[in-house]
Order: sequence, then structure tokens, then C-alpha cells
Amino acid sequence: MSKNKVKKQKKKQPKFVYYFGGGKAEGNAMMKGLLGGKGANLAEMVNLELPVPPGFTLTTELCSYYYDHGETYPDYLIAETDAALKKLEEEMGAKFGDPDNPLLLSVRSGARASMPGMMDTVLNLGLNDTTIKGLINKSNNPRFAYDAYRRFVSMYGDVVLDMKPKTKDDHNPFEELLAAKKKSRGATLDTELSADDLKQLVGEFKAAIKENVGIDFPEDPKEQLWGAISAVFGSWNNKRAKIYRKLNNIPGWWGTAVNVQAMVYGNLSEDSGTGVAFTRNAATGENMFYGEFLMNAQGEDVVAGTRTPLNIDKLKAEDQKSYDELIRIRGILEKHYREMLDIEFTIQQGRLYMLQCRTGKRTGLAEMRIAVDMVDEKLIKPKEALSRIDPEQLNQLLRPVFDAKEKQKSLDTGRLLATGLNAGPGAATGRVVFNAEDAEELAAKGDPVILVRVETSPDDIGGMDASEGILTSRGGMTSHAALVARQMGKVCVAGCGSLLIDYKTRTMRIENKDVVVNEGDYISLDGSTGEVINGQIPTNPSEVVKVLIEKSLAPKDSPTFRIYKQIMDWADKYRRLSVRTNADQPDQCHNAIAFGAEGIGLTRTEHMFFGEGKIGPMREMILAKTPEGRREALAKLLPLQRTDFEGIFEAMDGMPVTIRTIDPPLHEFIPHDEAGQKELADMMGISISDIKERVEALHEFNPMLGFRGVRLGLIYPEITEMQARAIFEAAANVIKSGLKVYPEVMIPLVGNVLELKDQEEIVRRVASEVMAEADIKFDYMVGTMIEVPRGAITAAEIAEVAEFFSFGTNDLTQTTLGLSRDDSGRFLPEYVARDIYHTDPFAAIDRKGVGFLMKHAVKYGRKVRKGMKIGICGEHGGEPSSVEFCHEIGLDYVSCSPYRVPIARLAAAKAALKDSAGKKKKNKKEKTL
Amino acid sequence: MSKNKVKKQKKKQPKFVYYFGGGKAEGNAMMKGLLGGKGANLAEMVNLELPVPPGFTLTTELCSYYYDHGETYPDYLIAETDAALKKLEEEMGAKFGDPDNPLLLSVRSGARASMPGMMDTVLNLGLNDTTIKGLINKSNNPRFAYDAYRRFVSMYGDVVLDMKPKTKDDHNPFEELLAAKKKSRGATLDTELSADDLKQLVGEFKAAIKENVGIDFPEDPKEQLWGAISAVFGSWNNKRAKIYRKLNNIPGWWGTAVNVQAMVYGNLSEDSGTGVAFTRNAATGENMFYGEFLMNAQGEDVVAGTRTPLNIDKLKAEDQKSYDELIRIRGILEKHYREMLDIEFTIQQGRLYMLQCRTGKRTGLAEMRIAVDMVDEKLIKPKEALSRIDPEQLNQLLRPVFDAKEKQKSLDTGRLLATGLNAGPGAATGRVVFNAEDAEELAAKGDPVILVRVETSPDDIGGMDASEGILTSRGGMTSHAALVARQMGKVCVAGCGSLLIDYKTRTMRIENKDVVVNEGDYISLDGSTGEVINGQIPTNPSEVVKVLIEKSLAPKDSPTFRIYKQIMDWADKYRRLSVRTNADQPDQCHNAIAFGAEGIGLTRTEHMFFGEGKIGPMREMILAKTPEGRREALAKLLPLQRTDFEGIFEAMDGMPVTIRTIDPPLHEFIPHDEAGQKELADMMGISISDIKERVEALHEFNPMLGFRGVRLGLIYPEITEMQARAIFEAAANVIKSGLKVYPEVMIPLVGNVLELKDQEEIVRRVASEVMAEADIKFDYMVGTMIEVPRGAITAAEIAEVAEFFSFGTNDLTQTTLGLSRDDSGRFLPEYVARDIYHTDPFAAIDRKGVGFLMKHAVKYGRKVRKGMKIGICGEHGGEPSSVEFCHEIGLDYVSCSPYRVPIARLAAAKAALKDSAGKKKKNKKEKTL
Repeated sequence: MSKNKVKKQKKKQPKFVYYFGGGKAEGNAMMKGLLGGKGANLAEMVNLELPVPPGFTLTTELCSYYYDHGETYPDYLIAETDAALKKLEEEMGAKFGDPDNPLLLSVRSGARASMPGMMDTVLNLGLNDTTIKGLINKSNNPRFAYDAYRRFVSMYGDVVLDMKPKTKDDHNPFEELLAAKKKSRGATLDTELSADDLKQLVGEFKAAIKENVGIDFPEDPKEQLWGAISAVFGSWNNKRAKIYRKLNNIPGWWGTAVNVQAMVYGNLSEDSGTGVAFTRNAATGENMFYGEFLMNAQGEDVVAGTRTPLNIDKLKAEDQKSYDELIRIRGILEKHYREMLDIEFTIQQGRLYMLQCRTGKRTGLAEMRIAVDMVDEKLIKPKEALSRIDPEQLNQLLRPVFDAKEKQKSLDTGRLLATGLNAGPGAATGRVVFNAEDAEELAAKGDPVILVRVETSPDDIGGMDASEGILTSRGGMTSHAALVARQMGKVCVAGCGSLLIDYKTRTMRIENKDVVVNEGDYISLDGSTGEVINGQIPTNPSEVVKVLIEKSLAPKDSPTFRIYKQIMDWADKYRRLSVRTNADQPDQCHNAIAFGAEGIGLTRTEHMFFGEGKIGPMREMILAKTPEGRREALAKLLPLQRTDFEGIFEAMDGMPVTIRTIDPPLHEFIPHDEAGQKELADMMGISISDIKERVEALHEFNPMLGFRGVRLGLIYPEITEMQARAIFEAAANVIKSGLKVYPEVMIPLVGNVLELKDQEEIVRRVASEVMAEADIKFDYMVGTMIEVPRGAITAAEIAEVAEFFSFGTNDLTQTTLGLSRDDSGRFLPEYVARDIYHTDPFAAIDRKGVGFLMKHAVKYGRKVRKGMKIGICGEHGGEPSSVEFCHEIGLDYVSCSPYRVPIARLAAAKAALKDSAGKKKKNKKEKTL
Repeated sequence: MSKNKVKKQKKKQPKFVYYFGGGKAEGNAMMKGLLGGKGANLAEMVNLELPVPPGFTLTTELCSYYYDHGETYPDYLIAETDAALKKLEEEMGAKFGDPDNPLLLSVRSGARASMPGMMDTVLNLGLNDTTIKGLINKSNNPRFAYDAYRRFVSMYGDVVLDMKPKTKDDHNPFEELLAAKKKSRGATLDTELSADDLKQLVGEFKAAIKENVGIDFPEDPKEQLWGAISAVFGSWNNKRAKIYRKLNNIPGWWGTAVNVQAMVYGNLSEDSGTGVAFTRNAATGENMFYGEFLMNAQGEDVVAGTRTPLNIDKLKAEDQKSYDELIRIRGILEKHYREMLDIEFTIQQGRLYMLQCRTGKRTGLAEMRIAVDMVDEKLIKPKEALSRIDPEQLNQLLRPVFDAKEKQKSLDTGRLLATGLNAGPGAATGRVVFNAEDAEELAAKGDPVILVRVETSPDDIGGMDASEGILTSRGGMTSHAALVARQMGKVCVAGCGSLLIDYKTRTMRIENKDVVVNEGDYISLDGSTGEVINGQIPTNPSEVVKVLIEKSLAPKDSPTFRIYKQIMDWADKYRRLSVRTNADQPDQCHNAIAFGAEGIGLTRTEHMFFGEGKIGPMREMILAKTPEGRREALAKLLPLQRTDFEGIFEAMDGMPVTIRTIDPPLHEFIPHDEAGQKELADMMGISISDIKERVEALHEFNPMLGFRGVRLGLIYPEITEMQARAIFEAAANVIKSGLKVYPEVMIPLVGNVLELKDQEEIVRRVASEVMAEADIKFDYMVGTMIEVPRGAITAAEIAEVAEFFSFGTNDLTQTTLGLSRDDSGRFLPEYVARDIYHTDPFAAIDRKGVGFLMKHAVKYGRKVRKGMKIGICGEHGGEPSSVEFCHEIGLDYVSCSPYRVPIARLAAAKAALKDSAGKKKKNKKEKTL
């Protein structure tokens, strides 16, 4: 009872002020929520007995209190603050407001997450016309003292007193006064102003404040302090902070902390200075100290760029002691935090102070290298290394990348044309062509090519393969262009809506821009960001690809390959999910295996129909009016398709190969343009009006929901029959050649078990026939894609027939959300921007909707068929958060395009680690209960 | 233990033979499964002590045994049959095979369900060269006896011995012999042959058998009997019986029973005869005895049509005693069965025998009248009356119908052109026009019009309204044409694929037919069957419509109105579901209220945009490039739409009115043809290329899943704002005029609660604004359609915002099944034919898939919002089995087109009665357990 009371009281009067200093802090690095990132790390550094100017942190809870109580503070806060201030005065041996030995303070914001430059700061607080004298005496440097004073007054005026330009076009009044002063002295730099000039400016600034906001500048240091604290809390809700939070998903209720800290000065003397550093190279991850500094300067001078900072190595020559101390501190911090850190320091008259430390921002490449190195250095364990690496970062190892400086230069010179969807990561540069044939032709001449289309179709596959990159003005992340590009490992920017392509004149323009790109001109695509840039930018190819795919580089010659290899080895150790690939051709199979694929999760047979010699018979088949006519055409396709499957089976030697029977509506195979129809008519010896009539008859209002998938096989069983025969004959031939084959025949778009039953019977019958004819036995499976809601809902029935399920989450997303991926461009981006869907549901699985159906199907499918094999072959299979979901709901494998296989392997490992961590926690909880 | 043994034994030796006769039968009418319909009813009539020739039934279980045991019988069957035969001989005072007094038998099939003419029958069994003498003596009529004999031999040859024509082109050998005999005698009728001729024929028939099948005609009556029994069992699996079963969903395992019965002869003498009768008029239901008979004739003569049967009334003159007896029996049977019956009788030498009684087939109209009358007559209770009426039968009261004879004549003369989908029931006849304007023009001249289109669009609404019927060559049961036609109460035949319409020449042809229908020619549509018939057929308008809608007939002058009224009164007494209507215009509201609608479940605001003066501003809105431009156009639409809503609110006076905000993709409102675009360009003063560009930009690959529904309102909030304002201003105005208004604003296509939240806020804000402006308060609701799977799945979240749900089962079916209703024509009929889907899922709710999601949404929606109002406004809302499902899952209301409101009312009542019956049964079971 009494315990409760105490608790209640505590709740009524939370501790709002946390002191740090004197080798011991009241907070620590774990308390970021309460103290903000800066405050928590300052406390931690104090606890590590590093030299930190002492101070105290006003908590984020005080921020919430402040807003909840009409911007007021609790009564007892004054006492708490005064106590902390007293401690600070004692530690610094100076007094706040003391005319002889004044304590000066900095007041800085510090939220849970870094929000650089978004909130306010006040420095040199405590100066007034009395204390300035003490500062002059202490520093023995009047110019320094008045410089600090004028900076304080202007900062205070801007931040606390809300000084504004008189009109919109005016500059900041303080800057105008400073400029006027310099002009009157014939000076160009601030440093050319004398102590007196600065002293005058202080007076002029104060007068400007009086004039502009109608109040006297507060001389009372306490009044200054509370004004600054409230201003920092207030800046949590300024416009730019709100926008930043929205963009970065930082919730408003977090609030900011305020750090009040004793000032130290890097600009006090020639043996003072200031700098920033990373404990390792933030670009490459190399284990070397990396930073910049300036002597006799303040932090803002390093950032402002008026003087060029020096490399941290040079500090050795300037101040060996401080340099050694910094190196020592670097070691302590890295060992303590087990992380690469970003630090700020100041040297005041030869004494080093740490002002900040936080996890350092870095490139993906650096992230990976640091993680791998830190395991070697025994700072972290492999599991932790994996937890730090975002699977998408692997793209930086697997794809060509732009020369960073060259790319920046091109952006700085205004060469960015447009931004589309980052549909296929990597960097590509090449000459623009506007159709697939031109792409093949130009590429054959050895020129790098960028294929630019409104949208691509299966017709364009040859041209896509010949190109370095593909750019489309229409279609989403799972449009044909995006999907095929990823499967090929090509760079792709899709759905770039501001592109105006004119096929006739062979030019492209950009909406609202005065630029024309002609056929043959160079452009560059950043498939990782979606940027389309005018002109050529040099690219660096992926070393990993050189080692694994092109075999043009020995593993030992590639530092990045070492990193890749290590990460993949760890990933394979921890993951439970198998990773397969979506591939239609032997070369794709080889690539995928090199990247670690353990089978094929999806072979789209229809892509094959566009290959050499196949589209003709395919079209004959479609135009046939009788089953006999269809059979004749199919007989021509059979040997061609069998050869395709043989190539794939050979490449996969014994790994499971899931082959999907024909899926798209037939009209996709017939030309829709006049010229193509004419050609086809001539070739087939029929009239063009016949062709047109057939095209008209095949037209669909909503082809996505039309005559496709299993529906085709059900109405035209002879197609399924031919495909089954091609699969099984190929299997028999390859087995006879001494290899192993394990085919899995997959029927698409099943929503009703009877559809599957019908097709299953055909497939099994043909399998028996082929085995009898070839006098050979082999195992195979028949299963289905779950890609319409009814398939998932009736999973228990379907599992009676299906030996495996594979989630087709592209179509399942379209049907579950009632959302055509190809038509969503006009509203889905807005939906994501407004957080109606947190991420594009075509990129990451929509867990609430699509995920519900997936879980349902897994549960009821396995209820009927124990241990049923279930995977995913939609585009989501290579997206990390979706892979995690697939792990969570107990799938057996994910399948993705070859270049995403490593990403999926890592994502699978991370999901497994997260899962087991979660389980451990849960177990712990259960034990303590 | 011993009990079990007995049971086992019993199971091993089931009773296969059931005797009927002597005033007591072993079976009864409840045993149709075991004895077949004929056998059960014969037994029942015996138990009622009606005059029935005695006999026995071999059970359907014997049929199963026969097939399960390689077409053999159990040993003990002989003894069982012999015992029954002995009993029969005793009762008849004759002996099977007796030369002096032979017992003759009929052997007839009799399955659980009637399969008229599908299986075999053998009559006069027991005749041979010995027993023929006894028959001659007994009948004292050699000609009769030999006629019976030759009929027996030929029947036995055909049925039991499987006599076949020699070649495919030959006739039946017995018929050929008969014809030859007649020719040789110069006779044209069978009756002109003498006893000797017939005797010779018997010999010739036997010789033909010997020649054709190589065996002697069996003279042994027992052999004859077993041959006939096996033949009848065998006929269960003949080809035509199998086809019939498939068409009528009769399972093969049912099997048939065999009835062996003493022969009676209607052709024995002048005081003999035979006839068939219905206990009431099968066409109208009128309570009068209705039948036909022939004296000195056999049953087949009545059917064959060689002699014209007489009206049953005439029997009084021929045989008063038998007539009186028949009337007495009619009374007994109707009272006993409480049903209208179909009976067969034979009079043998002045004595009446009942040969068959069963439930009589009848028209829908008769069904309803009989049910209502039988309640008046206290034969049945209202609940039973309702249970007998198929709600779809109400169409016969609500729609114009063809003069039955005239229609039959037109079919008989080959005037059937084609058959499409029966999309809007009723009968229509009129002149063909090929576009909406012509329809309006011709109708204005007073001519009845049939509008023929490939498909209709909202543009055609005026023309559809002016037409008697609508015929389309494309689109399904829920296509635009079908949907709007039903809402208007128009006859509609949709998706008639064999129709070849040529708009240019203003003609239509039929695939593979040599007929051309020109503009202005008459055709007739049967919207209940989907038949399209050439030429004019007179129609009879609905009396109920004359009373309720046109008010041109007094209720007392319409006998059918009495029936309608009574059925509806009962329905309203028992149903739990409310019934609302889908209506967009005041006249539709008035119709619906006349038919009993209790509110509007769906007002499609987009239909209004095609009304007078509205399409212009609508198109301006769509073509506007800025929110301001859109607002300007919307400002023009506001007063027009407000007037629309005022009309509806006035019509509905206080009933709830659900109004859906704009739903279809915007491109539906813009002309897609060159001419229309040109016109629009001129009107708007912009270039046609501008229009084309916009049309191109609005084009969608899958409009069904595209930029529509809530997505429009979310991106263009000004549209929602305008619509909300129109609704609420109209409400305010109508309330001020003294009426009550209860608007329910419904947001379509919601799949995510945040979409709804966004729109809800706009609607509520506008409501507050309007109430403040008008200084008035009124209640309203904001809810959503559940029509994409994700909406159903996340119902719990959506119910946090939605005050009501309405299932849009058209779209929910499309998305759940991944099936475009407009594109399913090429495979869905095949799916239904092959029973993959038992019924078209767009006609009746697919309970397993769509139904699962509906149940889920109801459960989780009401978990969050207790007692939440939930209804359905998809087309399924007027389909009886779907209404039943809606009752089962606890919806509050169904909503359907006005002319289906009575059907839904009745279906709702039947569902409630079925439900409570089920509950009662369940309780009973629980008690006995």
C-alpha cells in the first residue's frame, strides 16, 4: 500500500532535470527516450569518464508537460533546475551571472532521433553588460568576448524573441547591421572587425530588438535561461520540424529534451580549436579515423565553409596531446558502443572536450564493411553484424554504381531530368533508343543502350536484354518493365510520369522543362533512386558480379567480395527459409545459382513464347477456330518449349523447378498495332480484317480479371496438355542424360478446387503417358498459385488436390485491394504520401489485408495437408519486410529475381534471428510470470 | 448383443419387395426414396382404400444391389417375389401363366423423382400362346386379346431383347411389319386390322426376334417377368436417362424402383376407358377438375394424339358412376395430400381404377393461386403456402407476359432468332432501333421500341427508358444494360453472343442464320427465358402493375392482385429482413414504395450526371486541370444535383435513403468516339487533340480496379464536398417543407479505414456547415460499401468510422473471384455448365468465397460497433437464395431494383421460416439426445 503511494507520488512529481558531470551522470545512453539522443550520450560519455563540459538535461517529459499545461512549467521545476545549476557552478568554479567569473551556458535541443538543424540552439548564454567584463578578464581577449556577446544577442533575438525581417524581402536585421558595420569599416570578413566594432554592434542589436519586438533585451541571466529553454521546447513545433518529423515518421508526442551545458570555446586562442570526426570512414567503412578540424574556431565555422578545415591527421602537428587523447577516446567509444561513431570536440586552450557522440551516418557499403570488420575485431558477434545490415544495402555490392562525385556534379549542374520509380536498382548510362529492335541493333555495335518506352510488353524482351537500363513513363513497381528488368538484373526506372515520349520524332521531352532528348543522346539512370539524368556518368561495375557471374575477377582481388561472402555465410547459417528464384532462361538460372538460389519458384512459360520461332505458332494457335487447329499449332510449339525446359532442368540439376502453365490473356500475344497486324495477316495468309475481328473478340474490359490463368487451360485443355508434355518429355530427356530433375507444375489463378482438379487430371495423365513412352519414372508435384482471394479463402478444399501452394502476391494484392497496379499511378503515390498505406502494397506485403489471406491459406492448407510445401513467387519474395512476414507465417521458401536472391537470403536470416530473439523474450517473460 | 446380430442380419437381407393391395400396402407416400414416386403413391392410394390394381414394388435398394453385384439378384429375392405374386394371384383370382384365367402384369419403372418417358415399361406381361386363350375367353374379345399380345411381343422385343433396326436408316422392325400388314390389308388405321391379322403379326414379330437377336421369344411368364424387371433396372442407365438426370441434378445412386402390377384394360370394351386429370387447373390454378379421357382406349392412345380426347366433364354423360367416383377420389386425394395432383385412371368394364397420382406440374401463376386458395380452404397454413411458392414466380404477376399460345406458335414456326441471358424478366415486343436517340424519337411517336445495342452505356439511359425492351450482344447479368433495365423494370436480354449488329447499315444478323432484321422491324423479347423472337407477339400486361403503379385497375377487379396481396401480407408477417430498393429517380422510388420498399439502399449518383444539363458541367469538371477549374464546374452541378436529391427525399418521405458518392472512373463520362469528342471540343471551345489527350490520360488497363470510388473523392475532395452539400441542402429544404428526411451517405470501394476517415471528415464538416447555414438540425449517417476483400477483412477497423456497412456484392464477387463480369462470357457459362460454380456467382452469392468475407465483415464489424446496421445493395439483394444467405448471416436489410422488391420480401419470409424450422428441428434433436 505504501509502495503504491510512493509510486503515485513519483508519478505526480517526475524528475525533470538530469545532471551530468563530475565523472558521474544521472542518465545514460539507454535513456534516449527521456533525455534525447544528445543528452543520453553526453551522460554516457560522462559515465565513461571522458572530458565533457558538465551540464544538465531537461527531459522530453517536461516538453510534454509544457505543451499539456498551456506552455507552463510545474512549480517545483525551479528548485530542481537551481539545484542542478548550483552543482554545475561548483564543478566549473564559476557562477551564473557573476561579474568576475561568469558561468556561460549553451542551451541545445536534443530529441530521441536526430533532427539536424530543425530545432533551436542558444550559445554563450549568461552574458550581459556586467558579466562581459568577467569574460574579458578571464579570457584576456576582449575581441573574443565581444564576439561571443554579439553572437549571443543576435541568436537570442532570433530564437527567443522572434525577431523578424521588417518586410518579406528584407534580410535578418542583425545580419543587415553586421553588413553595415563591415561596410563602414571597409571590411569583408567578420574577423576584420575590432573588439570595439563588436561592442558597438551589441548595442545596435539590442536597440534593434527594442524597436522590432518592443522589449528590452533581458540582462538577467535566469530570465535568459528560461527564455532559451522555452524557445527550444517551442521549436519542437515549428513548421520545419513538423515537416521533418512527417517525412521521417517521427511522432509528435516524443517531444524534445533541452541540454544546458557549460560553454567551452574553440575560438578562445591559438591553442583552441574545434572539429568533427567519424571513428571509421563513413563512405567505405575502412577502419581509420576520419575527420576535420580548425584551430581557433567555433563549430559553426567548420560547417560554414568560410575556412577550409584540415584533415584530422594534421592535428598531430598542431596539438599532439589533444590528438593522442582523441585517439584514446575513439578507442574507448568504439569499444563501448561497438559502433562507428560521429563525434564533435572542442579544444579550449589545449584542453580537449567532447561535445557530442552518436552513431555515425554511413553508406550501405560502409555499413556492411564495418559490421564484418567489427566481428573480426571481436567487437560484435555475427548475429549483431547481421542485425545492422539492411538487406537492400547489398544492392551496393551487386549492382554497378555511379562514380559518386561525378553523379553529384551532374545533379549540381542541373542535369536531373526527372524522377520515376526505382524499379531496378543500380546505375546505367547509355544512348537513348525508343524501341526494342533499335536497342538490339545499337547494342550489337557495342554501344551502351538505354531503352525508353511508354511501357514495355513481352515483345520487347530482346531489346531489354540488350540494354543497360530501361526507362518507362507508365507502370508501377510490378509492371512488365520492372518485373522483367529485375529478373534480368537490369537497371530500371519505371512509371516516370513527367516523361513525354514521341515515338514518331524519336524524341523525349520532360513536362514543364525546356529540354529535348533525341535518339542516340546519352542519359543515365539511377535505378536505386529513380533519378533520370541527362548525359553520361561513369559507372563502376560490381566486383561481386565480376567474381560470381562474369568470373573475370578472383575472389581474393576483391575486398567487397570478402564482405559479401562473409555476410552470405552468416545469413545461410541462421535463416530457415529457402530462397528460390524466378527465372525463365538457363542464363538466369546460372546467375541465380551463383547468387545462392536453391531452386526455381516461378518459371513463366509465356515469356518463352516470345522467343525465337515461337511467337508464330503461338499466334496460329490463338487464331485457330477449332481444337484441331489449335492442336496443330501446339504441335509446332511442343518441341520448342521442350528444348526450353531442357535448358532450365540442366541448369538447375536436381533443384526443384516450379513451372507455371500459361497465365496471361491470349490477346497479349497478338499485335495491337496496324503494322503488326498486317505483317501477321501476310504471314498467316489471312485477311487483316480477320485478325482485327479476332483481336476485337479477344478484347477485354479488365484483362487482369479476364480469360487467363487456369481459365485458359480449362477451356483449351490442349494447351495444358502440350505444356505438361513439354515439361515431362524434357524431364525424361534430361534424366536420361544423367542429371536429376524435380519438376513442380503450378496452375495459376485457381479460385475453386474444381478448376485445379480439372487441370491436375490432365497433367497427371500426360505424366503417366510420358513415363510409359520413355520407360522412366520420376517424381513431380502438381500445385497451385494462391493469387485470388477465393483461392486463399477455400485453401482447405484446394489443398485436397494441390501438393503445394505458391502465393502470387502481385495479383493477390490487386484483387484483395481492388487495385490495378498499372492504373494506380494517379492515386497510389498520394495514398503512400498520406500514409493511408504506409508503404506501396505492391512493394511490401500489405499484412493486414493480403497478409490475412496468406495466413488463412497457410493455416487451412496445412490443416488438410500436413507439412504442405508453401512458398511465395510474387515480386514481394525479394523484399526484406515481406520476406520477414513470410518467415513469420511459416512459409517454406521465398522466390525472387536472381539479383535479389542474396537480399532475400539476408532478409530471411534477419527474420529468423528476430524471431528467435522474440521467442527468447517471450520465454523469459513466461518464466518470470 | 443379440439385438445387434438381428440388425446385422436384417442389413444383410433387406426387404426388397413391397406389396400393395387388399386395402393395405406395405409402403406409403413417405417412402419415395425406397419405392420411387409411383410405387409410394400407389401404396398410399391403397392405404386410402382407393381402387388400385394390386401389385408389388421392387425397391430402389434392389436396383443398387443389382448394379453393385454385376447385374445379379440375391438368392432370396425369388422367394420374396413369389410370395408377393402369390398374394396378387389370390387377390385377383387369377394365376400367372394359367391357360384359363391368366394373371397379366404391367412392369413399370418409378424413380424417386419423375423422369417421364426416360425409362422402360412392359405391359400385358404373362401372355403366351397358351395364356392367350384364357384372355380370349375372359374378355370374349379375340381382337382385343391379340392386340394385347402383339403389343406385348413388340414391347418385350424392344425393351427386353433390345431389337434394333437393321441399319441406321431402317425403321423399327415391328413397325415395319405392322405397316406391311396394313398395306396388305388396304388399311390405314391399326383398328382396321382383324383379330387374325393381329394373330399373324404375333407370329411375324416372334420370327423377327429370332432373326434379329437370335433367340426364341420366351413363352415362360416367369422368364418374361425377370426379363422385364432387369430391363427396367437396366434402363436406369440408358443414355437418355443419364442425360436427363444430369440436366435435372438427379444423382445416379438413387436408382429406380420397379412396379409390377395387375393389368387393367381401358380398351377391353365400350364401357372401358382411360384418362388423365389435374385436380385443379394447372395453367391458372383455378379450383376446378381438369382432365381428358377416351373410352375404349389405352393410356398411350390419349398421349399419342391419334384420337382427340374429351374433356373430363363429358365423362358424366358416358359413365356417371365412374365420374362421381373420380370426383370423390379427387376430394379424398386433395384433402389427404393437401396438394394439386396429377392422376391417371382406367375404367375396365365400368369399374374405375387409379393407376397413378402425383403432385401436378403447374405454372407459377397456378402455384401461387393454389397455395393461396388452399389456405382459404383450410387445407394448408399460410407458412406452408409460402414454402411452396418460388419467389421468382412473382415475376409472372409483376411483368407483362406473352400470350402463351401465340408465343408457342412463333417458336413452332421457327421464329426463334437467338437466346441470350434472361437479364430482365417479362415479355416485350416492338420495333428495332439501334441507338438511344432513335428509341426516344420512335417511342415519342407512340411506337413500341426494342433498343438493340452491342452494349449500353450511361449515355443510353433516356433511350432505355423509352423502350419496351433492351437487347445487347455483350455483357453479363450485371452489365450496365441488365442492371439499369431491372432498375427501370424493363425487359432485357443481355449478352446474346450470336447477334451480329451492324450500326452502319442499321441491321442485325444472327451467326450461322440466314436472316436479317432491319431497323423498324418487329422483334419480341422474353426476358424470363432470354429468347429473342422474330416478329410481333401479343403481350398481356401485369394486373398487379395496373393496380399498384398505373392505378388503372381497381384491386377488386383483378384476381391476380388478390393473390399478390395475400402472398405479400403473409411474407411481411414472417420476414425479419427489411427490403429496400436501388433507385436513382423519384419515379423509381414511387414504384418501389408501391411494391413495398422500406427505404433506398443505393442511389447511384453517377446516373444523375447523365441527366438534363448535367453531362456538360460534369465533363467540364473532368477536363479541368486545376482544383479551381473543377470547383467552377462543380458549382454548376451543385444545384442540379440538389434538385435530384430533393425529388428522391420527397418521394421517400422519412424512409432512410442511402446515397453513394461518385463511383465510376471518370473516363466513363467522356465520349470515346471521334464524333462525340468533336462535339465536346466544340462545346467547350478547346481542341479535339486536347480532349483526346485527356481521354488517353484517363485510359485504364483495368478500370474496375482503377481510379474510382473513394479514390476519386480522396484525390478530388471537392467532388465529395459538392455531393455532400447537394445531399444536405436538399435534406434541409425538404425538411423545411414539412417532410422527414433520413440521409445515409455511403462511400464506395473502401479498403482501408483511413480512406473512409478522410471522406467522413469532409461529409461531416459539410453537414455542420449546411445545418448552420440553414439553421436546422437533422440526423444522418456516414457509412461505407464493403466491396473489396480488404474492406471485409479489415471490417473491425472500418467499423470504428463507418456507421453502417452495405455489401456491394457485384464488385466483391469480381475481386474475390478475380473475375471481371464483363469479360467472363467466354468461360463462365462453361464453368456453370460443368458445375465448377453451381450457379453464376454474379446471379447468386458465392457463399464459400464472397460469403466467407461477408460473414467475417458482419462478425468483426459488429464486434466493434454493437448492433451496426448492415445491408446489401449489390444485384444479389433481389435474388432469393442470396436473400436467404443475407438472412442467415444476420443482415438488417437487402436492397434491390424496384420490380424485385416483392420477390425479396417473399424470399426474406421464406428464409425466416426456414430458419425457425431449422431451429425447431435442432432443438428437438437436442432434446432427444
